[in-house]
Amino acid sequence: MEKVNLGDAFASFDEQWAPRLAGELNGQAVKLANADGEFVWHHHEDADELFLVVSGELRIELREEPDVVLQEGELVVVPAGVEHRPIAPDGAEILLFEPAETRNTGNVDAEQTQTDIERLDETEDS
Amino acid sequence: MEKVNLGDAFASFDEQWAPRLAGELNGQAVKLANADGEFVWHHHEDADELFLVVSGELRIELREEPDVVLQEGELVVVPAGVEHRPIAPDGAEILLFEPAETRNTGNVDAEQTQTDIERLDETEDS
Repeated sequence: MEKVNLGDAFASFDEQWAPRLAGELNGQAVKLANADGEFVWHHHEDADELFLVVSGELRIELREEPDVVLQEGELVVVPAGVEHRPIAPDGAEILLFEPAETRNTGNVDAEQTQTDIERLDETEDS
Repeated sequence: MEKVNLGDAFASFDEQWAPRLAGELNGQAVKLANADGEFVWHHHEDADELFLVVSGELRIELREEPDVVLQEGELVVVPAGVEHRPIAPDGAEILLFEPAETRNTGNVDAEQTQTDIERLDETEDS
């Protein structure tokens, strides 16, 4: 049974807003991403999404309620259908929890849209 | 949208091996628990279970492969059906991710078996 060390995992890739797959369970995925600057406004039609900040600060802008600002060791669940835009002006390392098939930019096609997610292992082996 | 600060959350309750509900998404639950000493051997018939150590050290004993020892910032997924026993000789704060209905002692009835899980809010309000 392989454990994941979050520090080692984040040290293994540099791409921004391009989640790596750290684990799967019960049809859900644990993904790790480097956040840097503004992401795109989007929502996930059928998927709630958990954000946990591992380092740095992540602001989640929302259309109809106050933004949520997460520091290291803080998490929030963005319910399905809720439009949101993550922003990390100074960079942040974030852990996401969501269905394995959830696309990073949700309903939106954007420059950052990721079609296939790489496993951490693949990165570490390269 | 309410965020959860893990530090504040763990400061809000003292019970050992009695998870508190920190959030729910896609039928899964984020649970927080103080681990201290030995838990019971058990498995979860249909549920994979993620352990993430927030502070301290957690050893997960396994019957048929080497133990997994998790330090702060390390996670592992224990697949459904795999018998395991968490141990934290010096105490640990752990985040669990698993189906909302998963029972802490799985297939086993034990002193620590929890029938209802309290929400963090309920604890904080008291």
